[in-house]
Formats: sequence, C-alpha cells, structure tokens
Amino acid sequence: MSESTGLDYRAAGVDLDAAERAKERLKPLVAVTRDENTLSELGLFGGLYSVPEGVESPVLVSSADGVGTKLKVAFLADCHDTVGQCLVNHCVNDILVQGARPLFFLDYLASGGMDEGVVTEVVSGVAQACKENSCALLGGETAQMPDFYAADEYDLAGFIVGIVARDKILDGSRVQAGDVLIGLPSSGLHTNGYTLARKIVFGTMGLTVADPFPGSKRTVGEVLLDVHRSYLGVLKPILETDMIRGLAHITGGGIPGNLPRILGTELGARVDLSSWEVPNSFRALREAGKVERDEMLRVFNMGVGMIVLTSPDDADGVMSALREGGSSPWVMGEVEAGEGVRW
Amino acid sequence: MSESTGLDYRAAGVDLDAAERAKERLKPLVAVTRDENTLSELGLFGGLYSVPEGVESPVLVSSADGVGTKLKVAFLADCHDTVGQCLVNHCVNDILVQGARPLFFLDYLASGGMDEGVVTEVVSGVAQACKENSCALLGGETAQMPDFYAADEYDLAGFIVGIVARDKILDGSRVQAGDVLIGLPSSGLHTNGYTLARKIVFGTMGLTVADPFPGSKRTVGEVLLDVHRSYLGVLKPILETDMIRGLAHITGGGIPGNLPRILGTELGARVDLSSWEVPNSFRALREAGKVERDEMLRVFNMGVGMIVLTSPDDADGVMSALREGGSSPWVMGEVEAGEGVRW
Repeated sequence: MSESTGLDYRAAGVDLDAAERAKERLKPLVAVTRDENTLSELGLFGGLYSVPEGVESPVLVSSADGVGTKLKVAFLADCHDTVGQCLVNHCVNDILVQGARPLFFLDYLASGGMDEGVVTEVVSGVAQACKENSCALLGGETAQMPDFYAADEYDLAGFIVGIVARDKILDGSRVQAGDVLIGLPSSGLHTNGYTLARKIVFGTMGLTVADPFPGSKRTVGEVLLDVHRSYLGVLKPILETDMIRGLAHITGGGIPGNLPRILGTELGARVDLSSWEVPNSFRALREAGKVERDEMLRVFNMGVGMIVLTSPDDADGVMSALREGGSSPWVMGEVEAGEGVRW
Repeated sequence: MSESTGLDYRAAGVDLDAAERAKERLKPLVAVTRDENTLSELGLFGGLYSVPEGVESPVLVSSADGVGTKLKVAFLADCHDTVGQCLVNHCVNDILVQGARPLFFLDYLASGGMDEGVVTEVVSGVAQACKENSCALLGGETAQMPDFYAADEYDLAGFIVGIVARDKILDGSRVQAGDVLIGLPSSGLHTNGYTLARKIVFGTMGLTVADPFPGSKRTVGEVLLDVHRSYLGVLKPILETDMIRGLAHITGGGIPGNLPRILGTELGARVDLSSWEVPNSFRALREAGKVERDEMLRVFNMGVGMIVLTSPDDADGVMSALREGGSSPWVMGEVEAGEGVRW
C-alpha cells in the first residue's frame, strides 16, 4: 500500500497485521489454561466449552468487571503483567461468593496503539491467574482504538463464567442472626478506590511510583500494584463441607457496600473495627488525605478482602480450615437483626 | 461530608450514589430480558443462569466484543441508544456462526463521568437487543474512571454465552469444495472500520454528523450509526434443518479475514465481486478516501454481513428459507480447493 496516495487502515491508526502478530504471541499463553472441557482454539468467532458433567441442576454464575484506574498506576510504573491477575482474581472471587467454581474467562483489552509487548504482558497476567484458578482463558477481544485511548494506555475488562449445583448456591437464605463474621486479609487495595488513592499519593503526598511508600520499605508502585488476592484456593475445600453460610467479597463500596448483599433486607451486622489492625497503606492514605473514617470504609477494603459467614457452632472448624489453607482469619463481628452494618 | 476539609471519593471524581441511582434506573430495563432460566436479580455479585435442559451434550459458546470507535460517532451525534444494540447483535452473530443460540449477556460500560441519562440510554439499547435476541441481560459492570475517559465519553464492551448441542457445532468440518456461498446484506458498516471511515467522513470530506451523507437522503450520523444487524432470527430456523454447513460473520478483517475461519487450511473460496452491488456508503467512502479496493475489502464488510455455506443441492432450499425469513440473499461464490479467498 506504500505507493498509494489514498487512505488505508494503518495510516488511520489501526494495524491489522500487528493484531494478527499479537494473536500469535498469545496462543501459547492461552494454551496452558486449556482443560478437558475446552473445545476451541483461539481464533474462532466464539470459544467453546462443554458443560461439565456431574453437577446436579447446574447453574452458571457469571460476572463482568474491570480493573478501574489501578491501570493508571500500571502505566506510571510501566508494569503490565499484574493487572490481568487482579482482574481474573476479582472475577473469581465475585462468583465464588455465590458458591461457584470458575469454568472460563474472556478478556476485553482496548488500547490506543497496539504495543505487542504490552499486550503480551497484560494477557500473560490474565493467563497466569486463569491457570492458578483452574479457569480456561477461552477468548477475548483486543481492540485498537486510536484517538480514543492514548497510544500507551489501555482499558482492561473481563468476564467469567462458573458453575454451581443449584442447592449449593450461596444466596443469603442460610444466613441467620447470631452467625459469625470471619475476616480474611486482603493483599492491599485490591482493585478499588484507586481514583482517591492516586489523588492522595500522587497529588497530596507528591510521590512518584519509584518513591518509597510512607511507612514501608517498598515503592509506591509496588504497594499500589499488589495483586488482588483470589480466595478460591482457601475457600473451595471449605465450601464443599457446607459450613459456610455466606460470603462477601469486599470490593467497591467497602464493607458497608458489600456485606449487606448477603444479609438481605431483614438482617444486618455488627463489625468490631478493633478486631483487626488496618494495614499501613490504608492508614497512610487516610492520614495524608485527611479522609473521614466512614469514607475510608466505603471506598477501601481496609484490609478485609473477604468475609465468611458461618454458624457459631461451625466457627472454630471454619477458622481451623482457613488457617490450614494458609490464610490468617479472625472473628470480626456477627450477624444481627435489623438492616445495615454497624461499627 | 461537605464540612470535611479532607478528600473523599466524590471530590476525587467518583460518585457512588450516582452509581447506585443508575443501577436502580437500569433494573426495569434488565427485567424485561429475564427468562425462565434467569435466577438472579441485578445487584448480586454474579448473575445466575440455569443450564437449559434438553440440549444433548451441551456446549457453551462465548464471545467478547466491543463497539470500537463507532462510539465516537455516537458521541458526536449525542445518540446513545443504538450502540448497545450493535454490541449485542455483533456478539449474537459471533456465536451464531458456531451454531449456538444466545443464553445471556453481560456488558462493561466505563465512563469518565456518570451521566445517568447516557448510562440509561446505552443500557436500554443493550436490553432492547437482548430482548430481541431472546438473551437474558444477566449483569454487567458500570465503571466510573475519571481522568481515564473524558467526562462525556465511554467505552462499551460485552460478553455473550450461548449454547449448542455438541454434534450441531459449526466448526468447518462439514464444508466441502463446491459448496455454495450465499451472502446476506449488512445494514451498513456494522461495527467495523470506523477509524478509517471517520477519518474520511470527518477529515477528508469535512462533514459533520448533521450533514447529509453523500448520495443519501440521510445524515452522516444516521448512516454511520445504522444498527449492526442480528442474523439470529433469519438463520435459527434454517440451522435446525442441518442445511447450513458453515457461517461466516463479516467483521474486522472483512471477507478475506473472516470467511477463511470456516474454511480451514485445505479449502479456499472464489467470490464474485460483481454478484452484488456495493452499497452507496462504502462507495462514497472509497471514492473520497481514494482507498484501494483490496483495502476496502479488508476493512469493511462492503455490504455483506453474513455468508452462509451450503451444499449445491441445498442452495435453493436455503435461499428460499432466507427469503421467507425476510432477508435478501444472493449467491456470491463457491468453496474451492486451495487456501485463501480469490476474487
């Protein structure tokens, strides 16, 4: 086309050949996530996945999510292999709280340019987390959208499908007043609150990603890019015992925004804020940003990544199983009559 | 929080209350798409959908897609209720070509601000097309990403899951040399080539969305925002007859990028470019942009939205059924030995 004086797609900013090359580089990354139910290779119009046998009255559980402006930190740090992990783990947790195990995942990656290296890094993170969560990376869309995204920026969203037997769905119906709330530590900010966190860290504090994070030996980039933790590994064996009555994944909206989702309209919860030490990262953000306590609790997970609801009789058993699974659980409160979360 | 001197999430650009209000406005839109397999209401962590009974060896078919820079035209025209239809119909077609009917859909809508009116318009288009395609709108993510997207811009992606019996999958294995290619008209540019089209229309031609499109009585905005057509309605009854050996949805990459996906490595196709009249919109773009013919064919659908592959014996029957279904099919070529698409 080089001799043409007319317009072509590449001159307009879209490089179909680069897209093809990127697709070739992604194939081996995707291949490691295949399982016995995966029927299709990358490149077909849609991905194919057999409905697994042996699940009674099988129900599909599906969720869509993005990484939010945590991506901005990844851009600043030029670090692109963790955000895909955050995305997958977030989605895995979102269906786990309904009792489901993941089957497959698809990603949507939209960028201004098509930097094959960055695309490969991003998708390698997606594929790694899919592998870790026994979830097939079934497909995805990599869109080139020049003059929509900056050349070196991208957005990343994902979509997961899992499965659960109908009578194993965690929908809140088993939760009762008096049930124990057990907290599981988050691994950092996870994927929420980054618009506020960035404003405080890069604005108020005046730091760069390479500076040490206040009160930490790690850099700002490292602290803010900590990978959103997946709770599948530690919770799956316990889910099989029926000791868990409900789960709440603490994402956007914090504890008051997420815990009520499993409590319904008749029940509330009392949370003992002194039952855990809020990690340094949140304390530093609060102090520098002069953020009110309730706003902190509504925007950030404050160190609580997942809340497990169990009967008082099973609480010890669940605590032991969580510890055996490698987590550090603590009792953080209880379910009470009357809507809302009280501190 | 108004008396606080500290930072909060709203001041940082994220309005959780607006997000909640938007969610309330979306509920009735979503409700009309529910079917007997939809188990969850909007607002849970993940959407729940029973695996339908009566499908032998059921296989899930899933696809992710975006609307691309067609969105830019929607912004210019301040018209937001059609892009969601384009997205859903695109996804429906992508799994239809593997023989699947849709079960459910999730959307990802990321914006700089959170204009509740725009969000409602966008999702109403998604919901309308879901309803038309008998597909439950099972959930989605509406992300507020200030200083990522401009306040009045957004990106929109979607994920679909459909189902097909294992022995009804269209994977190209039934396609043979001598099979007939039947073209189905597109309804416009569908969802591809907009980066080049916008460059030509708004750059080279110097038009605005309100100007008449050259050679048309409709405006530039109307022509460029024509809804991507769904072929589910016309093709589903014919798929049940087993007369269709393969389908190709003509999206990014055009005929040469998509038809080979169903032809495998041993077969190619001869396409008779004189068998249909390329619609005015593509001719006008080519002329003004001085785009080479092969580039046009690689970037745009050129009036062909879907290609149906059938045996010579069944061609008449398929043509009749397509006409009865309301489409205007034509024979556009045939499958041949030897890889590649020839004109």
